[in-house]
Amino acid sequence: MRDVAIIGVGLTKFGKREENVIQLMAEASIEALRDSRTANEDFGVVFVGNMASGEFEGKSGIANALVSEISLEPAFASKIENTSGSGGAAFYVAWMSVASGQSELALAVGGEKMTSVSTERATDIIASLTHAEEYGQGATLLSFAGLTARHYTERYGAPKEAIAKVAVKNHENGYLNPNAQFQKPITLEQVLTSPIIADPLRLYDFCPITDGAAAIVLVPAERARSFVEKPVRIGGVAGATSTHVVHEREDLTVLDAVRRASDKAYKMAGKGPKDIQVAELHDMFTLMEIIQSEDLGFFRKGEGWKALESGETTRRGALPINTSGGLKAKGHPIGATGTAQVAEITQQLQGRCGARQVKAEVGLTCNVAGFGNNSVVSILERM
Amino acid sequence: MRDVAIIGVGLTKFGKREENVIQLMAEASIEALRDSRTANEDFGVVFVGNMASGEFEGKSGIANALVSEISLEPAFASKIENTSGSGGAAFYVAWMSVASGQSELALAVGGEKMTSVSTERATDIIASLTHAEEYGQGATLLSFAGLTARHYTERYGAPKEAIAKVAVKNHENGYLNPNAQFQKPITLEQVLTSPIIADPLRLYDFCPITDGAAAIVLVPAERARSFVEKPVRIGGVAGATSTHVVHEREDLTVLDAVRRASDKAYKMAGKGPKDIQVAELHDMFTLMEIIQSEDLGFFRKGEGWKALESGETTRRGALPINTSGGLKAKGHPIGATGTAQVAEITQQLQGRCGARQVKAEVGLTCNVAGFGNNSVVSILERM
Repeated sequence: MRDVAIIGVGLTKFGKREENVIQLMAEASIEALRDSRTANEDFGVVFVGNMASGEFEGKSGIANALVSEISLEPAFASKIENTSGSGGAAFYVAWMSVASGQSELALAVGGEKMTSVSTERATDIIASLTHAEEYGQGATLLSFAGLTARHYTERYGAPKEAIAKVAVKNHENGYLNPNAQFQKPITLEQVLTSPIIADPLRLYDFCPITDGAAAIVLVPAERARSFVEKPVRIGGVAGATSTHVVHEREDLTVLDAVRRASDKAYKMAGKGPKDIQVAELHDMFTLMEIIQSEDLGFFRKGEGWKALESGETTRRGALPINTSGGLKAKGHPIGATGTAQVAEITQQLQGRCGARQVKAEVGLTCNVAGFGNNSVVSILERM
Repeated sequence: MRDVAIIGVGLTKFGKREENVIQLMAEASIEALRDSRTANEDFGVVFVGNMASGEFEGKSGIANALVSEISLEPAFASKIENTSGSGGAAFYVAWMSVASGQSELALAVGGEKMTSVSTERATDIIASLTHAEEYGQGATLLSFAGLTARHYTERYGAPKEAIAKVAVKNHENGYLNPNAQFQKPITLEQVLTSPIIADPLRLYDFCPITDGAAAIVLVPAERARSFVEKPVRIGGVAGATSTHVVHEREDLTVLDAVRRASDKAYKMAGKGPKDIQVAELHDMFTLMEIIQSEDLGFFRKGEGWKALESGETTRRGALPINTSGGLKAKGHPIGATGTAQVAEITQQLQGRCGARQVKAEVGLTCNVAGFGNNSVVSILERM
């Protein structure tokens, strides 16, 4: 198994877009090819992270369409679907292809076009990832979110203000990200007075519906400097599952899949939580960022919320989280999120993040699928 | 990159089934775990080949659902969508995971539930893999098939009887396969008098709509014999694409993706077309088996049809093709086909095919996606 590095990234602007999913992914891919100086190279594989192009736009085989659109044939291409973890899974599989020696150059692209349907229909499509029996009984993703937040706040004494501060912090970051869907700050009062969605969570606790794409170019680490000056090494990457059935979980405030994936990724990288200096976590609702920050070992279980009060996870803190704006402010085009996270950490380690730049040599991404039943964690390092 | 072997397979009966796609895949997976004696082992990854569970059944995240259904957590799981090549792609990615050293045990499962919708709706769903502009102009998969057959027969002087014999041969094989959808022989006259679908192709030239699943267990080759007596080595496996846009192709009677994928797979295995003793090809319509048999190097371009006249590709011939019955008689549950092909060749090399058993030590599978724009070829060997 050989070392693998990232040599280029590309992102579209996130938000409501006119283009279809193939055009969005082509835009991000072409930018990644330019960024990695590989526009004239032969690629071995193209893996496309996407949840539901069939349901959103009546399109299948989008990996074949993309590879043809950007003239990367004869690269092998396939779509990887892992619900909201599709982008992370595409990145993980692209890594496998280079690490195994099967490919010299690999492209991982995540993308989703969600605004092609009504918000009601989009919500239905997203809900198709839940367990049929639970959904059949009326348990939605939003109701699971509310239930988790009740458990967490009551058990650990977390004030609602601390949880709401995730949204405020992530909007502060998104304000400085030209690709973010929401480039505006919000106040704590705005979050705390927004409409209740699933008590105690409110509208501003949740990520929006978004169109967008993000792409990553991977090569064997030993070849990385022949393409670019500042490649980023993939120190560790791993995925894991826990039960799909939410009511079978012992503790709603623990994401076993995140613990398992990060254990493997840390071990592979020879690093631990204390080595991480910047992270992109999967804040599909505010509390999820806090829970993941605990399950990744940054903070003790039940104490992650304190970092929001102390400011430790802001850009000026010791461990900045979601400098991109996170899912909350950058937006969450489902299949794109995993590769967008990798793009943000890559650019942070390369010092290319402009006004939202932080100081870091090692970063982490955590992409979560379903209601936490699947996760891909990667650890990236300057080289 | 380490050697990888297959230690077990599992298949459901193909045809119209009452179960949903997750139940079908669970049935095949549990049989594969039993066959490989790995029911109590920890799996690293589960890759699920499936085209359109969202459109057929309103289900996404089916890889997470499956891994939970068969209690293989914390194995990482994802769905791989590559239209009719989804199963082959899942097998290919599972191979990458073991070859790279990321996983010790990998499960590749293909499955599709198609009879949940009307035949008209199923045809619409399948057509979503075509290029939007071509489909928008009224060019369907069936019309491309007819066009290809016109080109082929006129250019190479192939009689319609030779092409129809693919269906007769594959039904002869399917008759002996307990898992096949159609376990009945058909006559040449039946094929040649069935309704015209896309001149010169008729109803019996095309594969049916099918439900079913097939699963494969992969391990590092050096560990294979600690599980089973007759493991099968994956000598080579590779995928490749050619243009998605059919009218951009120089020659409709050539599948570039098959040529490219097989070149790579032969090279990896250190073998050539002459070494192959049994093969499963992707006969979504009869002529496709012939075209692939040429692009894989078994016969010269324009001469593959002669093997049908001489009987060379029957079970008693020098190179039996589609001993399972092929897509035509075994059925074509889209995402299942690639893994079902691997299961058939594995069982042929293990000598477990009963009445349809042939003599072979090296076999090949060719799984095709879209209208030939993507292909996965694998070469399997006794060890």
